[in-house]
Amino acid sequence: MRQSHLFTKTRKSAPKDEVSKNAQLLIRAGYIHKEMAGVYSYLPLGLRVLTRIEQVIREEMDAIGGQETKMATLHPSENWKQTGGWDNVDVLFKLMSRTEKEYALGQSEEEIVTPIGQEYASSYKDLPVAIYQIGQKYRDELRAKSGIMRGREFGMKDMYSFHETQDDFDRFYGIVKEAYFKVYSRCGLDAKVTEASGGAFSEKFSYEFMVLTDAGEDDIVYCEKCTHCANVEVSSQKEGDTCPKCSKGELKSAKAAEVGNVFDLGQKYPKAFNFTFKTNDGTEQYPVMGCYGIGTTRLMGTVVEVLSDDKGIVWPKEIAPYRVHLIGITGGNKDVAAEADKLYDHLQENGIEVLYDDRDARAGEKFADSELIGIPTRIVVSEKTMQEGGVEVVERTTGTAAFIQDSGIIEYFQK
Amino acid sequence: MRQSHLFTKTRKSAPKDEVSKNAQLLIRAGYIHKEMAGVYSYLPLGLRVLTRIEQVIREEMDAIGGQETKMATLHPSENWKQTGGWDNVDVLFKLMSRTEKEYALGQSEEEIVTPIGQEYASSYKDLPVAIYQIGQKYRDELRAKSGIMRGREFGMKDMYSFHETQDDFDRFYGIVKEAYFKVYSRCGLDAKVTEASGGAFSEKFSYEFMVLTDAGEDDIVYCEKCTHCANVEVSSQKEGDTCPKCSKGELKSAKAAEVGNVFDLGQKYPKAFNFTFKTNDGTEQYPVMGCYGIGTTRLMGTVVEVLSDDKGIVWPKEIAPYRVHLIGITGGNKDVAAEADKLYDHLQENGIEVLYDDRDARAGEKFADSELIGIPTRIVVSEKTMQEGGVEVVERTTGTAAFIQDSGIIEYFQK
Repeated sequence: MRQSHLFTKTRKSAPKDEVSKNAQLLIRAGYIHKEMAGVYSYLPLGLRVLTRIEQVIREEMDAIGGQETKMATLHPSENWKQTGGWDNVDVLFKLMSRTEKEYALGQSEEEIVTPIGQEYASSYKDLPVAIYQIGQKYRDELRAKSGIMRGREFGMKDMYSFHETQDDFDRFYGIVKEAYFKVYSRCGLDAKVTEASGGAFSEKFSYEFMVLTDAGEDDIVYCEKCTHCANVEVSSQKEGDTCPKCSKGELKSAKAAEVGNVFDLGQKYPKAFNFTFKTNDGTEQYPVMGCYGIGTTRLMGTVVEVLSDDKGIVWPKEIAPYRVHLIGITGGNKDVAAEADKLYDHLQENGIEVLYDDRDARAGEKFADSELIGIPTRIVVSEKTMQEGGVEVVERTTGTAAFIQDSGIIEYFQK
Repeated sequence: MRQSHLFTKTRKSAPKDEVSKNAQLLIRAGYIHKEMAGVYSYLPLGLRVLTRIEQVIREEMDAIGGQETKMATLHPSENWKQTGGWDNVDVLFKLMSRTEKEYALGQSEEEIVTPIGQEYASSYKDLPVAIYQIGQKYRDELRAKSGIMRGREFGMKDMYSFHETQDDFDRFYGIVKEAYFKVYSRCGLDAKVTEASGGAFSEKFSYEFMVLTDAGEDDIVYCEKCTHCANVEVSSQKEGDTCPKCSKGELKSAKAAEVGNVFDLGQKYPKAFNFTFKTNDGTEQYPVMGCYGIGTTRLMGTVVEVLSDDKGIVWPKEIAPYRVHLIGITGGNKDVAAEADKLYDHLQENGIEVLYDDRDARAGEKFADSELIGIPTRIVVSEKTMQEGGVEVVERTTGTAAFIQDSGIIEYFQK
């Protein structure tokens, strides 16, 4: 993409009412546009990042047998009344048609996916099944001050599974947990999972995937010597306690953002819709259901909170909008512009995605914009680099610069 | 994809309240699930088709310089009040938060994209710009009996452009028109475009892209000798008239489905938001705005209406959920199953996407399901074909069968 064609531009400042770091940076760099508190539009660069995050998640869900769908977001009120959610879910947006039919906006899709599961799974031979989608969700949040980390409209991957037995759900939860850790790792994040909260007296068990960040809304304690992690809200554990898991480490407390969750829903929804399957011995039984969420837009915001520095955003390679930010410092020299044009084509022909700053702007402005936008590798073409038969390559993460001969450029990205 | 793993199954019949042919076939074949009138979920096969249609549109919009975004669907009421749409658009869904803030659900995005354009385009140097998105739209329709061709929730590609002059909009409209015809052609449809309707006394000029089908809701007249086409609703032309364009053909009348439209919006929305740009001579001026829509789900429904036959759906190759439907007729013979497994891997290794019917079912059931699902090419592996060292290949469009030697299978798809 030639930057001269990209319709967005960097901005000196974000809107005054925007208090979150993630949204401030993303707005200043031209990734998102704020429509109101908790609602943002994704501009070309932002959509590219979001699409890559979605693709990472899609690959990991497909790899464990998840089947992708696109469920309705405009829900008949009947489904929500059947489960009790119509009166009990306070963040549910409700609306009414001209003909006074009531609808809910999807904040989760148990009310839609359970009847779908019921339609197609009538025998133990049809189980287990894991159905997911990636799309918009809506929550009537009282407060929305965390940028794209807590939206009234937001993106989410939500998967639902149906099982013959509790054991089979437990088995599948273990598989999903590994897939979730792969997703976070590919997005450059180090995540921890909390122990099941809720407990025996709750209708739901839940597991929460947490990333340490001061922008998070959760308080956790975690052990530095093992993987133990607990949400303070549902745990009596506190900083300084000896780790209850390894008995070696001392617990530390931290702010964290919940970047994923898993609910053991038991048979609640199948019972509400009278969804049974025929077991191997011929009896009818309700399946055990699980729900697995990852907020795609929240994940994007968390990456910005955790990885950015004082110059701007720092994208991990897998989810960066482009792999390379090519910058031509022409100083009016047409040969340099032609060389940069040639390199732009050459990189793309080799499957390397490039944002090409071909604008008529000062070098300092181009470099500052490049650091704000945060593409992993910057390549600079100038009179000086041309004379030396190569380009300057700067890594955004480390700031280290190196000179690469023209003949070695493609190889540099194949490492 | 192994069909034994696919959670959907074909059904003998669609829900009784489903009167449209497109939804009946898509439900029976397992592409979609009906939530209520005008609202459907897209199951794995359906999502694959929709994703391909979106990709065709994306490629054609990118090719003419369109820049993809993802705009909010939950809109602040203020934006709609500013343009007058809040009180005048009868299909607008409105809702209210717990804190009594009013929102609209996007049925079109002029109210969102105009402030975005205003944010980034302040000079004639920033124009023209074309911004599009592909996503969900909501319309409070009084009636929704056309399956996925008219939804209360539906998918749409909507693009918006801003121009210095009316002439520049006209130039760009010509380019979009060609891109639209490419989209329809790639989707297997033969589309016609109506002359501008509305006329000088209307605030809007519009062009409508029409596909002949009895499932359509529009009445048109068209000339068989040239490209002339007019919507009867806004034209005095009628069947039997001499074509006003070529003066040679006679007009015929037909039912048609509107699969796209273009609105010349003039300066209405820029004026409403006081969006001006600085011209070359230093004055401030409102840009001329255009809007370009293609209903993605409607396009999918139209393809089903137009191309299906009495056995089921017939997908064009570019938008089919899979390129090949591989059917193993094993009759319990493990060697045949192993051969089909091998071919499944071989096709996929060569980049050919395959739905593999590895189910334990009768040949007749597999063939009937295959015809209902409508994948372009069916490959049959059986004891008989193995003995002859090849496979049977049947084209869904023509029904013609051919025997292909094993060594020639990949080549068959590279033609």
